[in-house]
Amino acid sequence: MLVSGTPYRTIWLNDDGASVDVIDQTRLPHDFEVLTLRTLEDAAHAIQTMVVRGAPLIGATAAYGICLGLREDASDMALNHAAATLTATRPTAVNLRWATERMVDHVRALPDQDRLAAAYLEAARIADEDAAQCRSIGDHGATLLQTLAAGRDAPLNVLTHCNAGWLATVDWGTALAPIYVAHEAGLPVHVWVDETRPRNQGAALTAWELAEHGIPHTVIVDNAGGHLMQAGKVDCCITGTDRTTYTGDVANKIGTYLKALAAHDNGIPFYVALPGTTIDWTVADGAEIPIEERGTDEVTRITGRLDAGGTATVILTPAASPAANPAFDVTPARLVTALITERGVCEASEAGLRGLYPGTR
Amino acid sequence: MLVSGTPYRTIWLNDDGASVDVIDQTRLPHDFEVLTLRTLEDAAHAIQTMVVRGAPLIGATAAYGICLGLREDASDMALNHAAATLTATRPTAVNLRWATERMVDHVRALPDQDRLAAAYLEAARIADEDAAQCRSIGDHGATLLQTLAAGRDAPLNVLTHCNAGWLATVDWGTALAPIYVAHEAGLPVHVWVDETRPRNQGAALTAWELAEHGIPHTVIVDNAGGHLMQAGKVDCCITGTDRTTYTGDVANKIGTYLKALAAHDNGIPFYVALPGTTIDWTVADGAEIPIEERGTDEVTRITGRLDAGGTATVILTPAASPAANPAFDVTPARLVTALITERGVCEASEAGLRGLYPGTR
Repeated sequence: MLVSGTPYRTIWLNDDGASVDVIDQTRLPHDFEVLTLRTLEDAAHAIQTMVVRGAPLIGATAAYGICLGLREDASDMALNHAAATLTATRPTAVNLRWATERMVDHVRALPDQDRLAAAYLEAARIADEDAAQCRSIGDHGATLLQTLAAGRDAPLNVLTHCNAGWLATVDWGTALAPIYVAHEAGLPVHVWVDETRPRNQGAALTAWELAEHGIPHTVIVDNAGGHLMQAGKVDCCITGTDRTTYTGDVANKIGTYLKALAAHDNGIPFYVALPGTTIDWTVADGAEIPIEERGTDEVTRITGRLDAGGTATVILTPAASPAANPAFDVTPARLVTALITERGVCEASEAGLRGLYPGTR
Repeated sequence: MLVSGTPYRTIWLNDDGASVDVIDQTRLPHDFEVLTLRTLEDAAHAIQTMVVRGAPLIGATAAYGICLGLREDASDMALNHAAATLTATRPTAVNLRWATERMVDHVRALPDQDRLAAAYLEAARIADEDAAQCRSIGDHGATLLQTLAAGRDAPLNVLTHCNAGWLATVDWGTALAPIYVAHEAGLPVHVWVDETRPRNQGAALTAWELAEHGIPHTVIVDNAGGHLMQAGKVDCCITGTDRTTYTGDVANKIGTYLKALAAHDNGIPFYVALPGTTIDWTVADGAEIPIEERGTDEVTRITGRLDAGGTATVILTPAASPAANPAFDVTPARLVTALITERGVCEASEAGLRGLYPGTR
């Protein structure tokens, strides 16, 4: 997608055919900086410090991390060390493990001298596949948006929560992909961007990528969406998901459930966009999904830019007040109008998902 | 209520019988400072700059502002000037106008030399009546909490939004009054405090007053309440209201509606506490209540304390991203389990309210 008019992905191989560049997402939205990864350690550090974030992008970074490791040493021992180093950075990230294993499986059978070239090709394939999958989610979702917009003059108002945009993937994003595709096709769209406390990925990342790509949008606090829906100012919601049960329950960033309730109460479609890889074929009831409790500093402190330049972190709560920070919630399938996948749109139900992913389990 | 173990009101007459002290709420939660109002201008400035806030407290401050004006000049002209100065500070505050008119009506009939003493008595009456009314809301609400807690060992978990505590009134508060009364009666209560973006009155004021009074509580982001309700960690919600239709619809701080939806979806009682003065006997449908749009700086910037001391304001959003800031939303009566008033508890309906306030319109 565009940054100041120039097309970017979140990760790309440099012309030297060796080093890999990524957008430093910890500096957004205030500074756009590209960071060059030259070693396995650079890649691991980028994942660990959330220079890159979002499951698909973490996977692609790990894939290139294996390449960077093989540049120094292509032996089995080095390959195992690279895989272990990368998967240890964020132990709960499913895509991280998946991408690392795919890379290792792909090169292990080859003689040492052939491994590096094969690894770079496979990493590029992982990145390209992710971009294509997201584009496909975008195509299917854009059709939904076109249908909703039929006969309207005013822009279609879409509300989104957190960041499931191209910054979380290699390109296009998941929840925002339908918006980018619809925009490309000339459909006027306006996005309500939930700031998404506590980490403010909406205000920082979603707003930034929409602004850079030239898509009209407005940042709101997480409290505002219900009122906007009551006032007829939201035509549909689209969010991403971290994990989807095979019955269509959706675990996503904390607060998603509240927006789904409001959409349901106001008869507004609530869509969830996802690649098939986030479907958990072992869990029937979303209530069984364990919810990560994150550090309370994310609630009691916030970081932003100072008018004078530079950033600062400020404390928001009384010193004597404890805080709690559940990071995700589960939206039951009954509140989800449809799931938008790379294979098409389906009902948020076991029948819907098995129809698109037959034979999967 | 208590501050560091000492009982306080938000406003009180000093021993000199002339000047009035208020808690400077703009410095909370990080600093507790008392400000002395000596002149009409001091009082007007305290209201305008939100040193004092909350409809009942604004009313009491205006009442004392009339006294301070009369100290300099007790003529009709000065009285009119004082009333005009005070009501201009926050034009939409209904209690401000009500308290000012009550004071003017009370003293205007008296000879100039008797006005000052009468004014101080009337201002004290306004403050005492507010404290008594809030205490009464607390008594009625505490009975509900006692019923909910019957047979439980664990503390009762109450979720609240924004600040409808004693800081918004002269004492006791509205939504928090039942909690203070229940706590006084020995009922173990734990409060989930929504931070309440964008102005963070929950994180700043509600958390502070609960901490100072020694009531167990936990600050959460506004996104978290739905998940906590799904997880069985909320036994009831209590919020305040800025305006209640005679049919029981409730206009309150933005985000209240989302919590009411989640409470309804999880079978959790959702109570709204209010003095009868906030009932609007002219509006049947909450959707007709105009919603104030406040400045977008409240969304794009936030102020807090620096670790090194002092405060700073940081920018949260990209420079190119616009924001919107609707300040209130309307929770329809169907989502409100009951209204808690100074006259008792009633259904959120015309029948319920007319039963408690017969003959009012």
